[in-house]
Amino acid sequence: MIRDLTDDEARRALPLKWGTMPPDVLPAWVAETDYAWAPPVREAITAAVGAGLTGYPTFESGGELGKAYAGFAQRQFGQEIDPAWVIPSVDVTAGVRFALDVLSEPGPMVMPLPGYPPQLGIAEVTGRERVDLVLDADAEHAEIDLDGLDRLLAAGARTLLLTQPHNPWGRVFTRAELEGIRDVVRRRGARVVADEIHAPLVLDGSPPHLSYLSLEDTHDHAVAVVAASKAFNVQGLRCAQVIAPDPATRQRLLDAPMARNDSWSPLGEVAAIAAYTHGDEWLTALRSRLSSQRDLLVRLLAEHLPDARMRPLEATYLAWIDLRAYGHDDPAAVALERGRVQVSPGHDYQPGLAGHVRLNIATSPERLEEIVRRLARGLTGAR
Amino acid sequence: MIRDLTDDEARRALPLKWGTMPPDVLPAWVAETDYAWAPPVREAITAAVGAGLTGYPTFESGGELGKAYAGFAQRQFGQEIDPAWVIPSVDVTAGVRFALDVLSEPGPMVMPLPGYPPQLGIAEVTGRERVDLVLDADAEHAEIDLDGLDRLLAAGARTLLLTQPHNPWGRVFTRAELEGIRDVVRRRGARVVADEIHAPLVLDGSPPHLSYLSLEDTHDHAVAVVAASKAFNVQGLRCAQVIAPDPATRQRLLDAPMARNDSWSPLGEVAAIAAYTHGDEWLTALRSRLSSQRDLLVRLLAEHLPDARMRPLEATYLAWIDLRAYGHDDPAAVALERGRVQVSPGHDYQPGLAGHVRLNIATSPERLEEIVRRLARGLTGAR
Ligand SMILES: Cc1ncc(COP(=O)(O)O)c(C=O)c1O
Ligand SMILES: Cc1ncc(COP(=O)(O)O)c(C=O)c1O
Repeated sequence: MIRDLTDDEARRALPLKWGTMPPDVLPAWVAETDYAWAPPVREAITAAVGAGLTGYPTFESGGELGKAYAGFAQRQFGQEIDPAWVIPSVDVTAGVRFALDVLSEPGPMVMPLPGYPPQLGIAEVTGRERVDLVLDADAEHAEIDLDGLDRLLAAGARTLLLTQPHNPWGRVFTRAELEGIRDVVRRRGARVVADEIHAPLVLDGSPPHLSYLSLEDTHDHAVAVVAASKAFNVQGLRCAQVIAPDPATRQRLLDAPMARNDSWSPLGEVAAIAAYTHGDEWLTALRSRLSSQRDLLVRLLAEHLPDARMRPLEATYLAWIDLRAYGHDDPAAVALERGRVQVSPGHDYQPGLAGHVRLNIATSPERLEEIVRRLARGLTGAR
Repeated sequence: MIRDLTDDEARRALPLKWGTMPPDVLPAWVAETDYAWAPPVREAITAAVGAGLTGYPTFESGGELGKAYAGFAQRQFGQEIDPAWVIPSVDVTAGVRFALDVLSEPGPMVMPLPGYPPQLGIAEVTGRERVDLVLDADAEHAEIDLDGLDRLLAAGARTLLLTQPHNPWGRVFTRAELEGIRDVVRRRGARVVADEIHAPLVLDGSPPHLSYLSLEDTHDHAVAVVAASKAFNVQGLRCAQVIAPDPATRQRLLDAPMARNDSWSPLGEVAAIAAYTHGDEWLTALRSRLSSQRDLLVRLLAEHLPDARMRPLEATYLAWIDLRAYGHDDPAAVALERGRVQVSPGHDYQPGLAGHVRLNIATSPERLEEIVRRLARGLTGAR
C-alpha cells in the first residue's frame, strides 16, 4: 500500500529534499517521506486541478474541513472535536505564529531544545524573547523539565511552545507527563501553543497520542496546531489547522485582521479533507512501514555504528542520534563529505550542540541501509 | 482564446467568489476572473500534480522563477530585472507584510484610500499606525495628493504602500506622477512598498505600466511585490514575488528568520513560471477581452444607470463606481437584496464612505450585462 518513489520520482516530487542534492548524495534530511501520495489524496487533488480549482479558499467555521478533522480526531485519537473549533492556516509554523501574535501576552516564549529549527526563530518573529528549556544530552529519558519550566514561567515567560509528539526528541508524552506540564502552566497563568503536526505518526509499541486539548482544564489557555501534511506528505500544498476550543479565544483569532491568516491554499484544503476522510487505511500501512524502518535503523546502528546512542523512537520518522562517541563536532558535515549522505546537523536544532544528527527514516529499507552505511563510512572511514 | 467558465465550472473553480453565493445571486465581487486557466498554466500544473509535486519548495535566488519573471518584465514592461532580485513569498499581501516587518522603520504607514481591504489591516499587523491619504470622492482625476503625502511623511510616517496600477482607483500612474511621489519620499527619507500585482492588466488606451523600481533613485528605498496570480487567475496556488534590487535590502530579507517567509507553494511557483514564460499570447487576449468588457460597462452604465459616475478604468478588471446619485448609503447591500447581484461595498475600501461599489467586469459580456441590469434594478426598482 505504501509505494516507494524511485529516485527520479523523488527528485520531481520533493524539490527541496531530493532536488537540491548533488546526484551522488543520498538525502535523509528534510522531514518529507519518499512515498507516493495516498491514493485518496492523489485522486482528490487530481480532480480539483481538473476542475481548475484556482480561486481563493472560503472559510466557514464548522465547514467541510472542520468536519473532516473532527471525524479523523475521533477515529484516530478518540478525541471529541467540534468542527467549529477548526480554523485553517497556511502551514503549522504560520499557525503557531498566528496564535502567538493574537493570543499570547508579550512575555518570553519557552522553547524546549533541541527543537524544530524554523521555530527557533518564531519568538523573535512575534517580537518575543525565546527562553530555552534544554534537554540534557546525556539524559536517559527525554522529558520536559518541569522545575525548569516553572522557573522560566515564574521569571516572566508567558507561553510554552509544546511540540508533541516531539520532533526531534521522538517522544510521545504520556498523560502523566502532559498533566504535569499543564499543572505548572496553570499555576503560572501561562499559555500553551501545542504543535501536534506529528500526531498521526505514533509508531508501534508507543502510548497513543493524546492531544494537549484532551486534558481537562486546558481549553482556557491552549490551542493546538495540526495538519495532514506531514503524515500524508503534502507539505507543499499549504493547509494546516488551528484548533481553538474556547469560544472567546476562537473569536480573537477570527477577529484578527485578515492579513494575519488568509494564505492557505484551496488545494491544501482539498488534500487535508481527503486525507482526514479517506486516509485511515493508508495511514495504518504508513505507521507499520515506519515502525519497521525504525526497527531496521536500530539493527543497522548496532551493526555499523555501535557507539551511536539513540533513545527509543516513539513517533515521527525522524531519529535523533547522538554520535559524540565518534569524535566529530559536526558529524553531518563529515558524513556528507566523506559518505555522501545528507542528514540534518544537530546544532540546527540546538545552537552549539556538537556530535548529534537527525536522520529521516521515511524511505525504502534499501535506502535506509545505504544511508546508515554511508553515515558509518563517513564517520569511521569504514568500508 | 479566453474561455468563459460556465456557472457550474465557476462554482467549482472559484469557491469564494462563486461558491459562497446563493444560487440566484450573480457574483461580481472578489477579484477573480470567470475565465479558464491559460493553457500553458493548466498544462504545467497538471504535469506537476501528475508528478506528485508535494514537497517543500526550494529557493535559490536567481533560480527558475527569477529568470521567468525577468523575461516577463523585459517583454511586458521593458524593465530590466536581475533574476537574483526575485524572492518568492506566499502571496502579495504576505509579501507586503514581510517587507514592512523587515525593512520599514517603526513609524506609521501611509495608505492611499480607498484601498484593497485586507491591506487596510496590514499596518496594524506589523505593529504600525496606518495614516490615510484619502482621495476626494468628487475629484475629477484620482491622484496621489503629493502635499498630503509630504505632510504625513513630515509628521513621522516612514513607509508609503503604493499600489500601482491601483485597485480600486483603476489608475495607471504616469511617469510624471511616479516621479513626483518619488521626490517627496526621497526628500523625507521614507520607504516605498509598491504593490504591483495588477501590472499585467493595463487596458487598451492607457499609458504603459512603469514599475516604481524602473525610476531612477528608487532602489535604495523601495521594493515591489508582484505576482502572476491576478492576471492568470491562480490566486489560490500561492506564490508571489518580492523584487528587491538593492543588495543590502535583499540581504536583510534573505537573512530574516525563515518563519517570516517560507509558506509559498511549489505549485504556485510552477504556475508562475509557466505564466511568465509561456503566457504572453493569452495575456494579450485577456487584456483585449477586459478592454472590451470595460467599454461595454461604460455603455451599460450610460443606459441603465445614467447617474453613475466612473472615472476612466485604465487598468485592472475592477471598476470603482460612484452611485451616490441613487441615494443609498450601502448600494451593494441594496443591490444584493433587491437585484440579486453581489458587488463589493465601497465602505470596505474606505471606512465610512457611502454610495460607492466596486464591480468586477472579468466575466462574459452576457453576465456583465445581467450584472448591470440587476444593479440598476436593485438601486432604482426598474425592470
Ligand atoms: C514539529 C514540527 N512543526 C512543524 C513542522 C513544519 O510544518 P509546516 O511546514 O506546516 O510549517 C515540522 C516539520 O518537520 C515539524 O517537525
Ligand atoms: C492591490 C491588490 N493587492 C493584493 C491583492 C491580493 O493578492 P494576494 O491574494 O496575493 O494577497 C489584490 C487582490 O485583488 C489587490 O487588488
